[in-house]
Amino acid sequence: MVMTLTEKSAIPGKTRTDQLLEQFFKGKETALARLISLVENDPSRMTVILPAIQQSLGTAFCIGFTGPPGAGKSSLVNQVVKLLRKQEKKVGIIAVDPTSPFSGGALLGDRVRMQELYLDPGVFIRSMATRGSLGGLSRATRDAIKLMDAFGMDYVLVETVGVGQTELDIMQTTDITVVVLVPEGGDSIQAMKAGLMEIGDIFVINKSDRPGADSMEAQLRIILHMNPRFEAAMPPVLLTQGKDGTGVDGLVEAIVTQESRLKEKELKWRRRERAEVEFEDVLKYWMTWEWKDLLEADAGVKQQYAEVISGRTDPYTALKELFPGGILNKNGFNK
Amino acid sequence: MVMTLTEKSAIPGKTRTDQLLEQFFKGKETALARLISLVENDPSRMTVILPAIQQSLGTAFCIGFTGPPGAGKSSLVNQVVKLLRKQEKKVGIIAVDPTSPFSGGALLGDRVRMQELYLDPGVFIRSMATRGSLGGLSRATRDAIKLMDAFGMDYVLVETVGVGQTELDIMQTTDITVVVLVPEGGDSIQAMKAGLMEIGDIFVINKSDRPGADSMEAQLRIILHMNPRFEAAMPPVLLTQGKDGTGVDGLVEAIVTQESRLKEKELKWRRRERAEVEFEDVLKYWMTWEWKDLLEADAGVKQQYAEVISGRTDPYTALKELFPGGILNKNGFNK
Repeated sequence: MVMTLTEKSAIPGKTRTDQLLEQFFKGKETALARLISLVENDPSRMTVILPAIQQSLGTAFCIGFTGPPGAGKSSLVNQVVKLLRKQEKKVGIIAVDPTSPFSGGALLGDRVRMQELYLDPGVFIRSMATRGSLGGLSRATRDAIKLMDAFGMDYVLVETVGVGQTELDIMQTTDITVVVLVPEGGDSIQAMKAGLMEIGDIFVINKSDRPGADSMEAQLRIILHMNPRFEAAMPPVLLTQGKDGTGVDGLVEAIVTQESRLKEKELKWRRRERAEVEFEDVLKYWMTWEWKDLLEADAGVKQQYAEVISGRTDPYTALKELFPGGILNKNGFNK
Repeated sequence: MVMTLTEKSAIPGKTRTDQLLEQFFKGKETALARLISLVENDPSRMTVILPAIQQSLGTAFCIGFTGPPGAGKSSLVNQVVKLLRKQEKKVGIIAVDPTSPFSGGALLGDRVRMQELYLDPGVFIRSMATRGSLGGLSRATRDAIKLMDAFGMDYVLVETVGVGQTELDIMQTTDITVVVLVPEGGDSIQAMKAGLMEIGDIFVINKSDRPGADSMEAQLRIILHMNPRFEAAMPPVLLTQGKDGTGVDGLVEAIVTQESRLKEKELKWRRRERAEVEFEDVLKYWMTWEWKDLLEADAGVKQQYAEVISGRTDPYTALKELFPGGILNKNGFNK
């Protein structure tokens, strides 16, 4: 049997999800954790969860932290959270680990430093790894941000390891991005290559007690100055030391300043842009999921599929054969 | 008007593509270059191109080179190509640069080293960047590999910068993967984190004249030994120096050995697995493209879209409204 969207949302487990949502709205962290896991492993759960939380969205301010491996992002996030907690803000942390597509073994050594935060009831920490994230890591991260937002977090901090496309995608689901660099030779050039200059709203040179921090700062300012993105206003460039918290107050100040400025106008636009991307993503994986059903249930699809896999035909010819009227089902449209 | 798949393939320019294909089959490198650009910028061109080249596919052996930035991959690829050319093999090189999603400025400094190869008529070099690659960089790279294969290359070498998810995706479109590391402290750990151990078929410690190469080799062998993937047979671990070619003959030997071994049996399976992934990718972007047409042409779609973008409704509720019978058009199926 080929399931339709409506049938899918009526699968067993809906009742379980509803129970979790009840607990969630009562402020139970265990329900938040369970819902994130549910959605990570089965994106279809969002068909029930998102409509339920939609009206509670939009209050949390979401900050991404990215930069090359070894830049000390975990320690820095740790320090930032401590200061936000002094202001009694509720904080969610998402640590993203793009791990092996095969073994899935997340190496969370860096995260040990965050241990003390685990004991604070105003802080909720979550690791996300590639494995088990159906529909992709940035999709799962986006859904986790939404759940934390609806749960009542004032801030959601997202930390990624590395600077690949997945990390860039994830950073585009946050409200602002803090790019964390270290005073070392090729670092700024590598960061430029990876597109970090294009997504950063605040730039931090961490481990600033190391030699070369000042010249790195000067170099970075020149690079940013040349970037048309910052023609109207230069982004903050800050020196910090994640290990002892030096300069982190300045970073928190810069974050709060950007938050106020964005909330006045630009944030609405940024969030609209993200909603566009999200809509298309949801469409894509929902379709993928229907496709998998068809592949099990439909002899014609099975046959064309086998032709393609064996190399006897190409995917384009096969799809034309399967969907002569187009892939999207337009029956539901009001024309 | 909403276009269907069949109409799309009849858009103006088809004749131009046919002309290019004629030149391509006559062995003109300019036609190969143009076809890669066409497909990079407009994946729909593959609807015409792939059926035309399908029967010429499967002869080239495709080798990925990946590893952290600064590992000297370009120099190493350069040396490998020189040795393959001594054996009179025709070689295609794809240098993948995941650049900024905004400015798109590819920094190809490393590639200057490849300059001498540009003059060799048996070598075809192509850079691929994120910008302009509709449907994603790994999609565009995969199509470029196919075009080079059908053009008659004996080997296609794909070099990626960095170790993110995009790079892992790209490496899964090659027949084997050479992981390039350098003798430096945290490198092997970072590589493990990024999943390189899970995709590598050959491991190279480049810049092996640097201190620590031997202990790095020992450490790497231990890590590989512990990996269940290599229970049956350990992968080669080689020391090279890209700058002067030391050890590169051993690398080429290892590549050729793996090629023979794989061609006996496993290659067919690897390629079938890839065909499965490819089919789903093609389905996804074709659908995305129909969706964009609908968004322009259909008032009902426009309205639901506006509701989602403004936050008044969520994508799941909107899609159920738009596609009550499911997203995929099942009219074409033989039930």
